[in-house]
Amino acid sequence: MKVKADLLLINAEQLVTVKGNSKRPARGLALGDPGIIAGGAVAVKDGLIAAVGSTVRVMEQVEMTAETVLIDARGTVVLPGLIDPHTHLLFAGSREDEFEMKIRGAAYLEILAGGGGIHSTVRATRSAGEGELVGMGQRYLGEMLAAGTTTAEIKSGYGLTLKDELKQLRSIRTLAERQPVELLPTFLGAHVIPEEYRSDPDEYVALVVGEMLPAVARSGLAGCCDVFCEEGVFSIEQSRRILLEAQRYGFKLKLHADEIVSLGGAELAVELGALSADHLVAVSGRGVAALASSETVAVLLPATTFCLMKERYAPARQMIEAGVAVALASDFNPGSCPVNSLPVVMGIACRQLKMTPAEAVVAATINAAHALGCAADRGSLEAGKKADLVIFDAADYRSLPYRFGTNLVKQVIKSGKVVVGG
Amino acid sequence: MKVKADLLLINAEQLVTVKGNSKRPARGLALGDPGIIAGGAVAVKDGLIAAVGSTVRVMEQVEMTAETVLIDARGTVVLPGLIDPHTHLLFAGSREDEFEMKIRGAAYLEILAGGGGIHSTVRATRSAGEGELVGMGQRYLGEMLAAGTTTAEIKSGYGLTLKDELKQLRSIRTLAERQPVELLPTFLGAHVIPEEYRSDPDEYVALVVGEMLPAVARSGLAGCCDVFCEEGVFSIEQSRRILLEAQRYGFKLKLHADEIVSLGGAELAVELGALSADHLVAVSGRGVAALASSETVAVLLPATTFCLMKERYAPARQMIEAGVAVALASDFNPGSCPVNSLPVVMGIACRQLKMTPAEAVVAATINAAHALGCAADRGSLEAGKKADLVIFDAADYRSLPYRFGTNLVKQVIKSGKVVVGG
Repeated sequence: MKVKADLLLINAEQLVTVKGNSKRPARGLALGDPGIIAGGAVAVKDGLIAAVGSTVRVMEQVEMTAETVLIDARGTVVLPGLIDPHTHLLFAGSREDEFEMKIRGAAYLEILAGGGGIHSTVRATRSAGEGELVGMGQRYLGEMLAAGTTTAEIKSGYGLTLKDELKQLRSIRTLAERQPVELLPTFLGAHVIPEEYRSDPDEYVALVVGEMLPAVARSGLAGCCDVFCEEGVFSIEQSRRILLEAQRYGFKLKLHADEIVSLGGAELAVELGALSADHLVAVSGRGVAALASSETVAVLLPATTFCLMKERYAPARQMIEAGVAVALASDFNPGSCPVNSLPVVMGIACRQLKMTPAEAVVAATINAAHALGCAADRGSLEAGKKADLVIFDAADYRSLPYRFGTNLVKQVIKSGKVVVGG
Repeated sequence: MKVKADLLLINAEQLVTVKGNSKRPARGLALGDPGIIAGGAVAVKDGLIAAVGSTVRVMEQVEMTAETVLIDARGTVVLPGLIDPHTHLLFAGSREDEFEMKIRGAAYLEILAGGGGIHSTVRATRSAGEGELVGMGQRYLGEMLAAGTTTAEIKSGYGLTLKDELKQLRSIRTLAERQPVELLPTFLGAHVIPEEYRSDPDEYVALVVGEMLPAVARSGLAGCCDVFCEEGVFSIEQSRRILLEAQRYGFKLKLHADEIVSLGGAELAVELGALSADHLVAVSGRGVAALASSETVAVLLPATTFCLMKERYAPARQMIEAGVAVALASDFNPGSCPVNSLPVVMGIACRQLKMTPAEAVVAATINAAHALGCAADRGSLEAGKKADLVIFDAADYRSLPYRFGTNLVKQVIKSGKVVVGG
């Protein structure tokens, strides 16, 4: 029996399916294979993909009704909805001042001394009401959706008290209800040692473990737990302690690993079976080997390196050649990375990480889904998955990174509904 | 008597006037002064700015009528329309293939051997009809307008025969009639030695001087003449010969100078009184000194360096500190720079050239106008100038480079008419 399609997209110049990697993240040759169908089509039923293939084959399987939304995608490229697996999107305030100070050569310590840096965002976020946080979040998510992101992770971590962390997580839940981008919340109470615990970081770790983790677990407001493991922030031992406890409460794990100093964060993430190790600019050869032999996804954040005006980027090619499963994310936050467009991140990845356009596409779709533990139901165009699609006004998927800085998105479809460019 | 305003914009959080540099390009302290009026207003009459100032002062000078378009710009930043003084916007074809080859490490010679590089664009542009060229141009200009560009230079130079150069210039004239961005055409017959003259470059120079310049001058289709002065392209002597002859025909001069090798292009541009010397990545200390003592504007193209994946950028701070008048441009073209958004260029300039946000704004407005010889009637918000305005959805002008990769444009006004976000 034929499927009565709610939505039928036909004739895509390139239908970029990224198929075949839903069980395990793509690495090696699979990372470079976008699975393109020329003249491709997608049929949607009840928010899910009912059929994918050439237009002729899909048309054979479906039936049009008076209600079917028909999209002729001639001359366009169609991708799975982009997935951003690492953002700090929920914050109050703005840091243009600090941006200018950095350009003028100020060191981060100077910026902190001037009242800037992460603690200024913590102060602003603690003072803000949920309405303000949700309002700012809606604006940023609207920008991201307009650039093709249909699923995003959002971390807490600008509260740093139980009350303020829960306020952030509640705001993320409200945001999830108010706009189309699907949100996966991560508890990042261990984002930085708050100013009031500077003299006794271990006491803050005890607070995270003893008070925050159980309460956040009870709240059901976060599925993952993350720690900022870095010299001067949380040590390997502190990170292990927090993440082991988080695992006991049922959280999936993520880790800010080896961004500045090779502490062994990648190895720790693999040891604990984390979904992802993120940043990895300073990852060691042992860290790369550990990642390559694991299911832990390396989430690279090249827009952060760009915005921090640093010359050394994560060794993406070394990782890819070693067989590491690589994903891309924006790291959107008011300090180190005000970029929230995944096509812009892909453009930086191609030019600075020397990832091919195909690798960048796979990294921002199915591998990003793996980094969030949601590859079973999204991240590729396959029957049964959520009907999350982005239609780009381009005839070649490589235009996304090539036409850097111009938003080529024509339409976005989330769970079968046209939410941008209707 | 009060002015009957056609359009009245009031209450801009920051009205960025960039005023005071219409006679000579901004340098030194003036380059870092965006001339901000808090709570500013602009009144427009017959396509020109009738009054600028605080909202209270402007309201005293104008009268509203039933036809007056009123824009309440509360919470936004308003800038003069951005000016892009260096583009190669008119071309056929696309070069994503070459983009991918470059990422994979191919040298430019390999790309040329594979049929890519500039000659592939020359072949495509020669084969294309004017309708196709105009159609592509309209798309790209639409993107630029949506990002805030209201005036752009466009060079010929993908024709390289008299017939094909004139075809390009005619297409630019048609484009100028079909969309709102004002276009200033430049004749760049000396863009590259065409394949058919490879064995005798001087013969091509003779063709440019003897046949093309007089015919283009007669056509009235270009106001400026430019030469690509570089090792292996046109030498200093060939460039001088072409530009001196162009000057005789009444063209204003521009020069692709010292991009890769320090040939002395900056010095030549100053010697000839050129409007601008462009690129300047390899400018010498003597070149910087020559520019500092002249009215010739240094047009920097940092998106090109970014897209070429090079590490060495133009020495912007050295130039600014020496007193050179610096402007910014996109260099939009299908090979070395597919970027056409000036806010993106400004974002790269801040991070890679270490220009402050204020310097980037002045460089993309009044100094860009000087680089095109049109600062008398645009490039700043001053009474009597064209009413070209861009309204950004931001409370601080530094958001333009800070919020990298997100288009913050809310409305664009060209000669008093709302042309984007109506």
